[in-house]
Amino acid sequence: MGSSSWLSFSLCLLLLCRMSQAQFGSSQESPFQSSRRSVSTRNECRIERLNALEPTRTVRSEAGMTDYFDEDNEQFRCAGVSAIRRVIEPRGLLLPSMSNAPRLVYIVQGRGIVGLVMPGCPETFQSFQRSERYEREEGGRHRRPRDEHQKVYQFEEGDVLAVPNGFAYWCYNNGENPVVAITVLDTSNDANQLDRSHRQFLLAGRQEEGRQRYRREESMKENILRGFSTESLAAAFGVNMELARKLQCRDDTRGEIVRVENGLQVLRPSRREEEEREESRSINGMEETYCSMKIKQNIEDPRRADVFNPRGGRITTLNSEKLPILRFIQMSAQRVVLYRNAMVSPHWNINAHSIMYCTGGRGRVEVADDKGESVFDGELHQGQLLIVPQNYAVLEWAESEGFQLVSIKTSDRAMVSSIVGKMSALRGMPEEVLMNSYRISRDEARRVKLTRGDEVAIFTPRRESRAEA
Amino acid sequence: MGSSSWLSFSLCLLLLCRMSQAQFGSSQESPFQSSRRSVSTRNECRIERLNALEPTRTVRSEAGMTDYFDEDNEQFRCAGVSAIRRVIEPRGLLLPSMSNAPRLVYIVQGRGIVGLVMPGCPETFQSFQRSERYEREEGGRHRRPRDEHQKVYQFEEGDVLAVPNGFAYWCYNNGENPVVAITVLDTSNDANQLDRSHRQFLLAGRQEEGRQRYRREESMKENILRGFSTESLAAAFGVNMELARKLQCRDDTRGEIVRVENGLQVLRPSRREEEEREESRSINGMEETYCSMKIKQNIEDPRRADVFNPRGGRITTLNSEKLPILRFIQMSAQRVVLYRNAMVSPHWNINAHSIMYCTGGRGRVEVADDKGESVFDGELHQGQLLIVPQNYAVLEWAESEGFQLVSIKTSDRAMVSSIVGKMSALRGMPEEVLMNSYRISRDEARRVKLTRGDEVAIFTPRRESRAEA
Amino acid sequence: MGSSSWLSFSLCLLLLCRMSQAQFGSSQESPFQSSRRSVSTRNECRIERLNALEPTRTVRSEAGMTDYFDEDNEQFRCAGVSAIRRVIEPRGLLLPSMSNAPRLVYIVQGRGIVGLVMPGCPETFQSFQRSERYEREEGGRHRRPRDEHQKVYQFEEGDVLAVPNGFAYWCYNNGENPVVAITVLDTSNDANQLDRSHRQFLLAGRQEEGRQRYRREESMKENILRGFSTESLAAAFGVNMELARKLQCRDDTRGEIVRVENGLQVLRPSRREEEEREESRSINGMEETYCSMKIKQNIEDPRRADVFNPRGGRITTLNSEKLPILRFIQMSAQRVVLYRNAMVSPHWNINAHSIMYCTGGRGRVEVADDKGESVFDGELHQGQLLIVPQNYAVLEWAESEGFQLVSIKTSDRAMVSSIVGKMSALRGMPEEVLMNSYRISRDEARRVKLTRGDEVAIFTPRRESRAEA
Repeated sequence: MGSSSWLSFSLCLLLLCRMSQAQFGSSQESPFQSSRRSVSTRNECRIERLNALEPTRTVRSEAGMTDYFDEDNEQFRCAGVSAIRRVIEPRGLLLPSMSNAPRLVYIVQGRGIVGLVMPGCPETFQSFQRSERYEREEGGRHRRPRDEHQKVYQFEEGDVLAVPNGFAYWCYNNGENPVVAITVLDTSNDANQLDRSHRQFLLAGRQEEGRQRYRREESMKENILRGFSTESLAAAFGVNMELARKLQCRDDTRGEIVRVENGLQVLRPSRREEEEREESRSINGMEETYCSMKIKQNIEDPRRADVFNPRGGRITTLNSEKLPILRFIQMSAQRVVLYRNAMVSPHWNINAHSIMYCTGGRGRVEVADDKGESVFDGELHQGQLLIVPQNYAVLEWAESEGFQLVSIKTSDRAMVSSIVGKMSALRGMPEEVLMNSYRISRDEARRVKLTRGDEVAIFTPRRESRAEA
Repeated sequence: MGSSSWLSFSLCLLLLCRMSQAQFGSSQESPFQSSRRSVSTRNECRIERLNALEPTRTVRSEAGMTDYFDEDNEQFRCAGVSAIRRVIEPRGLLLPSMSNAPRLVYIVQGRGIVGLVMPGCPETFQSFQRSERYEREEGGRHRRPRDEHQKVYQFEEGDVLAVPNGFAYWCYNNGENPVVAITVLDTSNDANQLDRSHRQFLLAGRQEEGRQRYRREESMKENILRGFSTESLAAAFGVNMELARKLQCRDDTRGEIVRVENGLQVLRPSRREEEEREESRSINGMEETYCSMKIKQNIEDPRRADVFNPRGGRITTLNSEKLPILRFIQMSAQRVVLYRNAMVSPHWNINAHSIMYCTGGRGRVEVADDKGESVFDGELHQGQLLIVPQNYAVLEWAESEGFQLVSIKTSDRAMVSSIVGKMSALRGMPEEVLMNSYRISRDEARRVKLTRGDEVAIFTPRRESRAEA
Repeated sequence: MGSSSWLSFSLCLLLLCRMSQAQFGSSQESPFQSSRRSVSTRNECRIERLNALEPTRTVRSEAGMTDYFDEDNEQFRCAGVSAIRRVIEPRGLLLPSMSNAPRLVYIVQGRGIVGLVMPGCPETFQSFQRSERYEREEGGRHRRPRDEHQKVYQFEEGDVLAVPNGFAYWCYNNGENPVVAITVLDTSNDANQLDRSHRQFLLAGRQEEGRQRYRREESMKENILRGFSTESLAAAFGVNMELARKLQCRDDTRGEIVRVENGLQVLRPSRREEEEREESRSINGMEETYCSMKIKQNIEDPRRADVFNPRGGRITTLNSEKLPILRFIQMSAQRVVLYRNAMVSPHWNINAHSIMYCTGGRGRVEVADDKGESVFDGELHQGQLLIVPQNYAVLEWAESEGFQLVSIKTSDRAMVSSIVGKMSALRGMPEEVLMNSYRISRDEARRVKLTRGDEVAIFTPRRESRAEA
């Protein structure tokens, strides 16, 4: 009895596990594990019109700027997400902070390092010897004592970083060019128990508020240490009042991205060493603990593509099967690169909203709602964002210069249903159902089902239709 | 350390698995796995009165009709569900569509076939030879090429069908009598991320709107292909503009249920073959993949009953232990058949709302709220629906013609606590607690606990009380 | 393929399992498994000021009293919880009831027994022989027949009891002193599907309403049996109308806590037997079924402390790793005992709200919000409650008489991030990040990171800061 029920449970897990049949490669998944909540009032989301969105407010810092999309916009509100674009100049340090919502960050451009402090994890990065640079600057007067801190990760263009809510996080541009990153925060995630506002808690510095909330304009956001009395802070840290006052950053006007004059010296493995470490871990067959969990993955490299059509483009999906931390964040990402005039098959997102951000080129996007009405039919170009609600039908069509997108989705196993092409909704139905549904002949039904042949998800336009139009 | 923590985790899974102690046979379950959300505002649901509900709007189609219950009714709103009753005439085809909410469909009457297109699953139904019928009609002029499509299921009276959100779905009546089906959609399920409205997306045809929403009356609902430009659609399908226009169904007035003049010819196994296939699968001990997951189960057959009282009636429960797909849909169903004057023990639903639909006969139903006030004390007859909120106490009592119900519940392991009878709340308490709670004697406490003897859930009235009343 | 995907799934479970890196001993956990929902409207929770809260309404019963905290208070509303303090006099019986929300109960004082009726579980407590007491009272006239009921648990000061929603529950004070208990109900838990009000359903007795809801004042709350017609009730129980009327408790004015004149005689194991039973179960390595699941755990005993600082105090955490039933209730508890002038490290709750209740002494508490503003800086003394929202930074500092707290948290694996001390956010960052963040020297950064040395979570004040202040 005991063993049989265990067996049946195992099998049910197994079954869950097997639900990884993919449409785009091995990426699509069951809609069922999402545990995101809908909002309370019926009809709250009367989306009669979608818009290509751009940031509505920019806050400049000493070494970069932060562009906020308006989270009170109905499209953001209905999807339950927030979005931020940051530009970090070379030698710019994004000060440590944490948020009430988990996030995915896509690196549009540049390279740098990121630190994520995971509570309870050991300080595994230790420096035992002098750094050359330090020696030069400080004149080699005193041997540098070792520093210990948690793991630091390198990132580069095309990486997706996964940051759980409540984890302290900082970031530094150690490259030659600005880092440009688009961040989507899932404020309606179960992990956020308060309300659906994005709340960023600074651990250092202070910054102009990114949003007019229920306060007068231009209010400053202080770091959380400023919210304690200096006396208590000094007692807690065991330092004097002067140093405690410094930690409160009272007169700091640098904003959330500050310039590190001589460059930040932190211990970090090279990209190559990092990859080797990751590989050895995956050879071992498991992540050792959550402390050594992988938090990033590149989705730009064409060799990682799940769908590749040499004349049409490619699609690369990053879900929790590939990056397990996404299981906890309940988000996933998809990179779409379309060549000249290529098209993504009309489809709908089964179990997630899709937050599409255009990283380059231009494309025509069409979106249809549950009443069969067009709620978007327009162009999306670099820097614009479009939120496609769950189940809404969408079609993307590159202009002559091509079209590059990154889509952040609100499920760790976002699942798509194509309408046409291989493994699509229409191909799954009997001919006679199509004949009677659309009042078409058997031959027409066959053309509807089969014209796209083995093309999956990405289509190259056919002469027939183009000519005729 | 590694192995011990793995062990402890396994044990905790095991424990989860073991939580299948049942009150009605092996059907009731832990309330804990539900991940349904409550609404945001306290006291939003001031249910001072429940009503026996009937559909408020009927939309006729060419070969059937669709009856909508008013989802803006407070009882539906508070339970976070929608309900629809459909009648499909013989040779009627319910056009393909998909919804934003998972649903259970109970077949009140009739038989037919249903197609469910699961994204990423193969087209496993292939026809290699001519069908006899086709030969006759088309005069055998050209050999019929094979058609391939996804699995098709047969259904009959008493079946429950489970349809996940976002999966395309069509249905055809291949019997001699109308198909009558009651559908409950769980719009507040985690799987639905937008708002709590039911949104049906047609894949073909067009239909009068079933609901006055935020639009003027009598608006038509188009299929999603109509929401794309014809040019883009032609390009995507690789077909000409004329055929693309047909796919948009611009002048279709047949509604969502259309007549198939010569009957629909689709490949399908016989009911017997289907059952054999299922059996062989369960002999193998597991579902192969979600692509071959079972989506239906009969709850009318008395041999499947969980509780059977030869003088009182029977209860058959269908939960995720019996039909694993329910785990993802987070709903379950219960069939109650009461004979003349029999009664279901007063009870409450621990972890779900119960949407009761009367399929035949008549019964008296009483419901009590958290203030011990009666919020319903009336009759329920065929075609009426009653929503019993979670935790509210309820009692069902058949009239002389008997009483048949199907209850759809908003948890895949809906759990009930009987107040009296075997395995009930009062029997679980010490005599002295009852004596002091109700100020009754030891003998009275014993009568309260034990009069019902071994009767579980279904009671036959006692002479004593009847006579006395 | 099958075995490899099973393997990968196992590994992912393993990984989940390993995420138990603790800050306070082995108690903190991944924030990710919480499946609590946020509310629907952005900015709904404008918490600009927290208050030390006390009950706002007291309802007296025959043998005790019930103090209600105002659940419409914004702080309770935003955290989605309710709180009640009960005082049960010796020989007081809290009548059986059940709630729509799971709860944790902390026994501040006293001892007693509690009965929890788990649906579907057997009546395992059976009395075969006369009790001595019964013999004496009833004069030994007739042999006492056996009584059977479900398990009864003993509790004492410092115990935490976990009660799932919808389970009938009663409680009796069999000690010499009043029982004082603080109860926190998680009304926004997924297990509650209706709205966020706390709904208590009495199974016996009647009581003045604890809350002005949408009714006139002073209304009486009846038990659920009163909501049925007497005739139906008699028929269901198979008893006469007179006894059915008694079950409805029409003229009962004793309230929810009644006096048992001669004391309640129920079968129960001694505390020692209970512990032995539990031990043997844990030696077997697993909980047999949910029917024998452990529902309580002591967190007062210093030997169970997770953090112990002989000069500062102790912290004891109770999460679902220690008490598996908490996994289903999605709550956890923490006991903090601070000695004279000791301090809990400034920290934030990563994945839960913290409902702090002061059981003794006094302390200064400071709370900072996401704008770095102080939302609370005041004293908390015995009997006061403070709700610290998720992510808000908080610091607790004992006055000279010491400070004792119990914190109930809205996640079964509540996770904390300390700001300073061993395994803290600041220690996890490189020195140079701190130097540039706070514009401090390398030496200062080192003091910030290292002054607290190996102290975890509980600090003793340093002379340096005190002197200087």
